[in-house]
Amino acid sequence: MKKLLRLVVCASALAALAFAQDKVDLDTIYKIKQEAFQNSKVMDHLWYLTEVHGPRLAGSPHYKAAADWAVKTLKDWGLDNARLEEWGKFGRGWENKKFTAAMTEPSYMPLIGAPQAWTASTEGVISGEPIIALLRTDEDLAKWKGKLTGKIVLTESPREIALHDKADDSRYTDAELAELATGQISSGMLRRPPAGGPPQNFMQMMAFRRKMNDFLRDEKVGVVLSGTRGDFGTYFTSNGGSRDPKDPQAPPMVVLTPEHYNRIYRLAEKSIATKLEIEVQNQWYEPDQNNFNVIAELPGTGKHKDEIVMIGGHLDSWHSATGATDNGTGSAVMLEVMRILKKLDLKLDRTVRIGLWDAEEEGLLGSRGYVTKTFADRSNMKTLPAWDKLSAYYNVDNGAGKIRGVYLQGNEAARPVLEAFLAPFKDLGVTTVTSRNTGGTDHQSFDAVGLPGFQFIQDPLEYSTRTHHSNMDSYDRVPREDMMQMAAIVASLVVDTANRDHMMPRKPKPEPRAEGRGPMGF
Amino acid sequence: MKKLLRLVVCASALAALAFAQDKVDLDTIYKIKQEAFQNSKVMDHLWYLTEVHGPRLAGSPHYKAAADWAVKTLKDWGLDNARLEEWGKFGRGWENKKFTAAMTEPSYMPLIGAPQAWTASTEGVISGEPIIALLRTDEDLAKWKGKLTGKIVLTESPREIALHDKADDSRYTDAELAELATGQISSGMLRRPPAGGPPQNFMQMMAFRRKMNDFLRDEKVGVVLSGTRGDFGTYFTSNGGSRDPKDPQAPPMVVLTPEHYNRIYRLAEKSIATKLEIEVQNQWYEPDQNNFNVIAELPGTGKHKDEIVMIGGHLDSWHSATGATDNGTGSAVMLEVMRILKKLDLKLDRTVRIGLWDAEEEGLLGSRGYVTKTFADRSNMKTLPAWDKLSAYYNVDNGAGKIRGVYLQGNEAARPVLEAFLAPFKDLGVTTVTSRNTGGTDHQSFDAVGLPGFQFIQDPLEYSTRTHHSNMDSYDRVPREDMMQMAAIVASLVVDTANRDHMMPRKPKPEPRAEGRGPMGF
Repeated sequence: MKKLLRLVVCASALAALAFAQDKVDLDTIYKIKQEAFQNSKVMDHLWYLTEVHGPRLAGSPHYKAAADWAVKTLKDWGLDNARLEEWGKFGRGWENKKFTAAMTEPSYMPLIGAPQAWTASTEGVISGEPIIALLRTDEDLAKWKGKLTGKIVLTESPREIALHDKADDSRYTDAELAELATGQISSGMLRRPPAGGPPQNFMQMMAFRRKMNDFLRDEKVGVVLSGTRGDFGTYFTSNGGSRDPKDPQAPPMVVLTPEHYNRIYRLAEKSIATKLEIEVQNQWYEPDQNNFNVIAELPGTGKHKDEIVMIGGHLDSWHSATGATDNGTGSAVMLEVMRILKKLDLKLDRTVRIGLWDAEEEGLLGSRGYVTKTFADRSNMKTLPAWDKLSAYYNVDNGAGKIRGVYLQGNEAARPVLEAFLAPFKDLGVTTVTSRNTGGTDHQSFDAVGLPGFQFIQDPLEYSTRTHHSNMDSYDRVPREDMMQMAAIVASLVVDTANRDHMMPRKPKPEPRAEGRGPMGF
Repeated sequence: MKKLLRLVVCASALAALAFAQDKVDLDTIYKIKQEAFQNSKVMDHLWYLTEVHGPRLAGSPHYKAAADWAVKTLKDWGLDNARLEEWGKFGRGWENKKFTAAMTEPSYMPLIGAPQAWTASTEGVISGEPIIALLRTDEDLAKWKGKLTGKIVLTESPREIALHDKADDSRYTDAELAELATGQISSGMLRRPPAGGPPQNFMQMMAFRRKMNDFLRDEKVGVVLSGTRGDFGTYFTSNGGSRDPKDPQAPPMVVLTPEHYNRIYRLAEKSIATKLEIEVQNQWYEPDQNNFNVIAELPGTGKHKDEIVMIGGHLDSWHSATGATDNGTGSAVMLEVMRILKKLDLKLDRTVRIGLWDAEEEGLLGSRGYVTKTFADRSNMKTLPAWDKLSAYYNVDNGAGKIRGVYLQGNEAARPVLEAFLAPFKDLGVTTVTSRNTGGTDHQSFDAVGLPGFQFIQDPLEYSTRTHHSNMDSYDRVPREDMMQMAAIVASLVVDTANRDHMMPRKPKPEPRAEGRGPMGF
């Protein structure tokens, strides 16, 4: 009992200490919450980004249109320096312009699916029997050589489909959050490959995929079909070919909802007369026409106005839906944060800057390019002057669920600061500051050069089960309440960080690290 | 305590009495289970009915092809009198032969959907802006008169889409089965409308729908779009027009997955330039070319061989999927029962007959026609000789879930018999005999003329959430284990019923009852 009491006293003392250093302005937070919840525009931003300007595939004209809309919107609100900013080379642009697919025998069935990105158009309508040609080894390629010209080819076995005995939607339980709050060996360290390259099997897989694509292109295959995970009409897409203008185009590749793929496969397997009709028209664009990040600022007015607090999320998406939860939500929340801060005309000591990033889906390209030209080159860790001036970067890219806490990326020195900043939001479900790393998005570009980059813990909702990279990443799957909560919390954190006496504590400056280490280039 | 003991004794005595009357032959059940589980063909039957011959819309050539396949299969197994049998008039046949739908502005998006059955083709490709015209009252029709010619019209508000916080798949818990086992006032009685017709609001709704269809046809509308329940790419279809060759065709009507419908609606609502391209080609067939039930028999060899035990399920389906759980499953299970009984060459006192019914989805038409011409006319309750010879009819049409019990339809006299017959299957999850009615399928055609017609309690799985009348009523959603269990249990019940000393007890003979009483004609 006594021991427990001491512990409680000790914890309170720590909290008091943190609060002493990092007192939050509850009046300001009240105003922010009022604006975020009573006068929210966050779903409007999301709607324009998704249903009007989506999909926002990097390199495509629709990405550019979404970026233009964001710049105009930020300008209309009166932000400074709202602009498109080049970040580097991307390669060819690509968009699907027509996709029709149907079974016509043994019975008519329109097929649910889409082409993979950066794959070729079909030569008009491809019509005929599907052929099963499982391509997994060099022997498979040899076996099928000369037999697939003009054909509709199934290269994969049917997908396993199970009954849905778990809900697609979930929120973190207290127990799950408590588990998440425990430390673990940095997954980033664990994930770093041993000797200058990604894992062997990944490289082998990529090499065989290139070889298979070359084979299928040389065969002049009609179209390649495959199933994906998902079901009920939901399928998942990614890229099927190269953006590099020097590379030949990948053959026409189409993914289908697995119920449809499986039916076609089983009919072909049992030699039931089956006929498909598939047409794909994809448009290619000249390289590097649409590669821009969106940047804008609210200038600080205090003695630290040359220092910066950044917020961001990636603006690009995959192509088979409108990119609502990945990452229309993060982009819309960050836009809303800027709107709220401007509208409330809050005093900001430091300058607040928003970055909406291009080409996250292809390897965090937009944010990496921005960080390299603005802050530091991680390959040699030569820093630019701005590297000393960035206090923190906050990123939202974990779907549509409300914020439940934050990942420190091992930056323990930032713990008391962020605990203090988040303390006023316990009633909104924010309870967890974890030392853990989380990967896969743009805060990593900052973290990689020793800048404090943070990504939030968000309720999972249907992100991993249904929307992430699927054709059902739709506006309707985003709950307004979660979006308003995120905007209120990020806006408050930004003000707290901008007005703090000191910059956010950092981890030790990292060693230089060569490019191309992992699958995503990290 | 004493009272409880007496009760227990009493229940045991009853059970003993039932067993004395209705002993089951455990050796036969063992053989049936061996064949049903070790040598199952039930998924093969399902596969041919769905992926080869589905969809099986009543009146369509594919329905006929599925029925022909079933007859041939039953003949190949050596069953007697396997045949197509006419049951009455159906009206025009209809099949979708082409459906393409896409948004081309503001961005390209192939639309997931299908035409409603018995609606017209579009006049080629309909291309243009969608128009919102909510049609709910006569005033709405007057307001839009002359304004919809050739247009793509949205007649409904967007659909509410919620996060999926419950699993789509479920099985009955013990508590739910216990609740189901309690009596309730017959839902059939409650559902019977008061004065010779269905509820007023239903009649009003149908009348307005006819008026709206007439209006839209007179307007020469391009195509009517609507959302449906469902999501993630799943939508639900039914009929949109009349089968009666004297009626004009309903206008072209298309349903879309709600995420797509909602996007189109919101874009139109906010006047964002939006363009759709939709083409529907439907094929109409001469009336009454494909209206057949499938009938076959295993002749009894005992002293009651002129008496009959029937099993069945409906063979027809809706049109936007392959009709796996509604009711490929019931048809495949009943085919498998016949295969097992024939294969095992069991001694059957009574004759066993299978009926796979046409046009259940349009009002139990095939089974009603069969019952009327074979057993009794329920309008005057004049019975034919066979009415005295039918012991029982067992039906499967509650999806893909295994059997958990049986509905007595108020036939309490049958309770001890069915409790005894089902007792050997407790370990397979069969526990519940309920007095309750269940409606909506072909056992009602028998029950309506006083014949013992039974439908089983089945685990719900994804029937009401995902597959029932949806475009995702697919082979992949049917678990093999559940199908084998159903076949084993129905086969055993059939043998028990065929070899029982007496016919199944009946309810009192019903009063004559005019046609057209309810929405389904009941």
